[in-house]
Amino acid sequence: MAEEPIQDVAHLGHVELLSPKPEESLWFFKEVLGMEEAAREGQSVYLRAFGDFDHNTLKLTEAGNAGLDHIGWRTVSPQALDRRVRALEKSGRGKGWVEGDVGHGPAYRFEDPDGHPMEVYYEAEKYRASESERPALKNQPQRHPNRGVGVRRLDHVNVLCQEVTANREFMQEYLGFKLRENVVLDDGTEANAWISVTPLVHDIAYSLDATNSNGRLHHVAYWCDNREDLLRAADVFLENGIHIETGPSKHAVTQGFFLYVYEPGGNRVEIFSGGYLIFAPDFEPVTWTQEERAKGQAWGLELPETFHTYGTPVVDEAAETREVPVFGPS
Amino acid sequence: MAEEPIQDVAHLGHVELLSPKPEESLWFFKEVLGMEEAAREGQSVYLRAFGDFDHNTLKLTEAGNAGLDHIGWRTVSPQALDRRVRALEKSGRGKGWVEGDVGHGPAYRFEDPDGHPMEVYYEAEKYRASESERPALKNQPQRHPNRGVGVRRLDHVNVLCQEVTANREFMQEYLGFKLRENVVLDDGTEANAWISVTPLVHDIAYSLDATNSNGRLHHVAYWCDNREDLLRAADVFLENGIHIETGPSKHAVTQGFFLYVYEPGGNRVEIFSGGYLIFAPDFEPVTWTQEERAKGQAWGLELPETFHTYGTPVVDEAAETREVPVFGPS
Amino acid sequence: MAEEPIQDVAHLGHVELLSPKPEESLWFFKEVLGMEEAAREGQSVYLRAFGDFDHNTLKLTEAGNAGLDHIGWRTVSPQALDRRVRALEKSGRGKGWVEGDVGHGPAYRFEDPDGHPMEVYYEAEKYRASESERPALKNQPQRHPNRGVGVRRLDHVNVLCQEVTANREFMQEYLGFKLRENVVLDDGTEANAWISVTPLVHDIAYSLDATNSNGRLHHVAYWCDNREDLLRAADVFLENGIHIETGPSKHAVTQGFFLYVYEPGGNRVEIFSGGYLIFAPDFEPVTWTQEERAKGQAWGLELPETFHTYGTPVVDEAAETREVPVFGPS
Amino acid sequence: MAEEPIQDVAHLGHVELLSPKPEESLWFFKEVLGMEEAAREGQSVYLRAFGDFDHNTLKLTEAGNAGLDHIGWRTVSPQALDRRVRALEKSGRGKGWVEGDVGHGPAYRFEDPDGHPMEVYYEAEKYRASESERPALKNQPQRHPNRGVGVRRLDHVNVLCQEVTANREFMQEYLGFKLRENVVLDDGTEANAWISVTPLVHDIAYSLDATNSNGRLHHVAYWCDNREDLLRAADVFLENGIHIETGPSKHAVTQGFFLYVYEPGGNRVEIFSGGYLIFAPDFEPVTWTQEERAKGQAWGLELPETFHTYGTPVVDEAAETREVPVFGPS
Repeated sequence: MAEEPIQDVAHLGHVELLSPKPEESLWFFKEVLGMEEAAREGQSVYLRAFGDFDHNTLKLTEAGNAGLDHIGWRTVSPQALDRRVRALEKSGRGKGWVEGDVGHGPAYRFEDPDGHPMEVYYEAEKYRASESERPALKNQPQRHPNRGVGVRRLDHVNVLCQEVTANREFMQEYLGFKLRENVVLDDGTEANAWISVTPLVHDIAYSLDATNSNGRLHHVAYWCDNREDLLRAADVFLENGIHIETGPSKHAVTQGFFLYVYEPGGNRVEIFSGGYLIFAPDFEPVTWTQEERAKGQAWGLELPETFHTYGTPVVDEAAETREVPVFGPS
Repeated sequence: MAEEPIQDVAHLGHVELLSPKPEESLWFFKEVLGMEEAAREGQSVYLRAFGDFDHNTLKLTEAGNAGLDHIGWRTVSPQALDRRVRALEKSGRGKGWVEGDVGHGPAYRFEDPDGHPMEVYYEAEKYRASESERPALKNQPQRHPNRGVGVRRLDHVNVLCQEVTANREFMQEYLGFKLRENVVLDDGTEANAWISVTPLVHDIAYSLDATNSNGRLHHVAYWCDNREDLLRAADVFLENGIHIETGPSKHAVTQGFFLYVYEPGGNRVEIFSGGYLIFAPDFEPVTWTQEERAKGQAWGLELPETFHTYGTPVVDEAAETREVPVFGPS
Repeated sequence: MAEEPIQDVAHLGHVELLSPKPEESLWFFKEVLGMEEAAREGQSVYLRAFGDFDHNTLKLTEAGNAGLDHIGWRTVSPQALDRRVRALEKSGRGKGWVEGDVGHGPAYRFEDPDGHPMEVYYEAEKYRASESERPALKNQPQRHPNRGVGVRRLDHVNVLCQEVTANREFMQEYLGFKLRENVVLDDGTEANAWISVTPLVHDIAYSLDATNSNGRLHHVAYWCDNREDLLRAADVFLENGIHIETGPSKHAVTQGFFLYVYEPGGNRVEIFSGGYLIFAPDFEPVTWTQEERAKGQAWGLELPETFHTYGTPVVDEAAETREVPVFGPS
Repeated sequence: MAEEPIQDVAHLGHVELLSPKPEESLWFFKEVLGMEEAAREGQSVYLRAFGDFDHNTLKLTEAGNAGLDHIGWRTVSPQALDRRVRALEKSGRGKGWVEGDVGHGPAYRFEDPDGHPMEVYYEAEKYRASESERPALKNQPQRHPNRGVGVRRLDHVNVLCQEVTANREFMQEYLGFKLRENVVLDDGTEANAWISVTPLVHDIAYSLDATNSNGRLHHVAYWCDNREDLLRAADVFLENGIHIETGPSKHAVTQGFFLYVYEPGGNRVEIFSGGYLIFAPDFEPVTWTQEERAKGQAWGLELPETFHTYGTPVVDEAAETREVPVFGPS
């Protein structure tokens, strides 16, 4: 009888983004995306979408450049946290405990093989709506913002890396992620992998970095319930002068409905809807060939060149770009 | 440190419905809902939605009356199945092993306190699309049917019972369900409970049976990705002479977007979209008071009287109907 | 050869509403519906939707009660205005010229047989967006408001009357309206009529007044492009404590997708989408029987009692209500 | 006082398309678009969308090549037809009367300056649903097809030409079309013009032909009520192996929501929704500059090269292609 699956990580808890233009980035997340400011401390503002049950899901921090500071994963129990920490310690990639932050308790830091900083934690604070933010429906954490796009909740994060397989396997072995879909090029290189601990088709995705850099972010994605929300969002971005990189359209991989923009600080943000849920414990990962991916997105859309090269922090792409084709993360 | 949560049941696997008008019921599920016939055996036809990854999710069986034959739950592993069977044996509600059926292996039968037959199993057959049913996108189990409503996947089941609390607690204790939302009347009676093992806001719901019967079905729900699908579905039902009981509209409880119809055999079927996902291991259940539920659905819609009384099998409602108000399942 | 059709009235130009709670009504139209304030003068505020090409389409005036002050119709040319004025003078219902108002030139006043004040005019001012209101797309009159419902343009008005036929025939004979749909009761009474000069299925509708009053308003309707806009609007109303009378759902008559609310001053406002366009010059009006209308709206929804009785100004309904059934205006 | 506008042409009545693959083209229009076969005669099949009130709106004729046979415009009255015929006779482009066709009476043929064959007629046959095609809602001409895309009605036609201005002015002067939007290049060339007799933002559009050919078709467009219909349509096309050229996305010009495909015979077909209605008799045309149009479609999408060069009949593009940039028709 096969070993039982690890079910210790509950979900993506939060992402910390860096911005060299903190004021403009904050305006983007609050006024254009319609997120809420949950707290401020030091050089950081903590934000949440109206449907996030946690105190915050995005920490926006002033910095010299755009990029990803770290990714936080919440476990299903204190015991599960202990198990993951013991495993990570053995992995050689553990960095040790940190004190916690606004909205969550002690966290154990580690890095994936590509060097993206991550942490696991269990203790987390729920959002409690103040009187003025109380929603009409009590199963909704707070009032709908009634401004901007009105994203509902944090969905996933997508990062670039030098070797997809090594990172994917690390996440599977030490954290219990399951492979959902991936792209394998004709030369056998795994170009992208979509993995999750939840029934979502991905909580995180890894894609080859065309610039051979380490630790870069491709995008952070917030969820909307309906495709119409993304069509409306595109108009909101248009009216607010936000650069739309591509979309709204439908991905072939994940079947997600997507819309990609750059927030003023330079980080790519996706508004995401659709996709599909995976409940089967023995789901068979879907592997796409180079030829299949050459057909473009679901309805034939070709993603722009920047989609395959741009990430944060920005690197000098002229330096030494990878020759292998890199197919689109979603 | 609290005990760790049970994570042994993976998802709702299938439902067996009875129909006194098998031909008409089959027409409804295939031509109107757009489901696919997966197999036939004896007095039964096995069906699936185009996005169901399993071989089948609905077994439709000819019978003298409409109603629910049984509900099947799949576990996350063989070991998890063993653990659940041992627990159920101790519960006094175990019925023993059955051989399995088209699409799944050996199953352990039991009944909830209200007498709804259920089973747990692990071995399950995946659907393999034939050449003619091969989809354009390989992460989709089969081609979109391009007929009727085009429901995507089995979502949840909703049953009536004499005592909500007893049934809910049984499902929590022996199978690891978590309470998501419930309604508690002014006299302390729990009138409805929405519970799940997945991040879905409910895999099954229990509601007080206004006729004090046992083992009745309120509805089976299939999922569509977008609210527009339900608006279109309403036109499909209208054109096909299917009785629309209520909807499309938005539930307050679960925030689900709903549309209820009666299939020709008499069973109530819901087309469902929206709702919200729960990833937090310590989600705080939302309890609605009698006063809160008296406001109707999210946008004020009052459900018709039948919604609170009709279930299958149909019973003589004149006999001895319950006096307590019963608020709407969703 | 039949006489040629009158094509002199171009479209519904504006509506003046009265409100006993002007501040709250203004908040509703600006913050909740997302309309723009175009001007203020005396006891009135002039408003427009972001997609209205005219300077204003709604005049909101402080008054002792809610209700309709007048309806303005624009003609296709100065010559067409002359022709209509001459015809109206002969009708015996002409009231003479008035000076014009903010946004339009001289207007000729008249009343329909039921006493609803109306006017025809040709000269009208186009909206010119200021720098800050300039839209990203130059074929859109102004920026999308990015707040509230975001209605796009004035669509139609619906009034109550003592005799539908007399009013409908007056509008046809003197102004060139065409009958699109109507309801004729078993006793031969015309209970509702939907008429238009444009390809819209109605620019104005007449319905029997259940209270036998004169000159009452049933509702003013603003348009949204998609049904999803109305589903989102319902949430906006819910969060802002606006009373939703019924909807969103689909009318049988007109096929319109509807959502009815009461603005704080008491007037009923509809958010409308869908319906169908009529381009044929010899369109055959659709007449519904009492039995057909007894089926409810398109998907079976029964409108609430208030829909058949409430109008503004509010009258003492206990006095002498009409016995004939009155079927729903849309 | 300015001259009164001509209001003699009521609407686009029908389009005749040629196909070298008549069987496959018919399958496309019936099974994929969900249109209905209204009649067959000779080498032609007559089709209609479920919401077309006329007997047919598309005549599909077997031929040696794809392309446009002719465009039919219906007038508002017999008198209006007489007036237009007299005007066309004076224009020097009249070709004389033809007998009529399945679904309409005698028609007067003419050509626009670029040589696209057109006709005007008044007598037209309405569609009468047979018992089996009777709709649930009597204001709908027939049952919804419940297959394929389910387009609702003919919307517009878009043709290529050597000189936009000459064609536009001809349509304005002799048929009463009004200019709604156009593109004027830096060198003063009018590259595209969208014109209409109805409140639709275009009944026909003219675009520069990049191959300097005459009489070519860019596309015929059928309408769907909601943007979601186009998103669903894209999946229908994908599953049926229909080439999607671009979309679904939003045009800047017309604000239309678009989806372009090639039917198997080679003609480009658009599924269209949105746009905006123009009721003002003195609407001010919107002129786009070369720089403005260089921004791509509303959300930044760049149309593929074929969109600017491909038309039917297909010509040898290598021959002598026009150097001026041609911006996208919609």
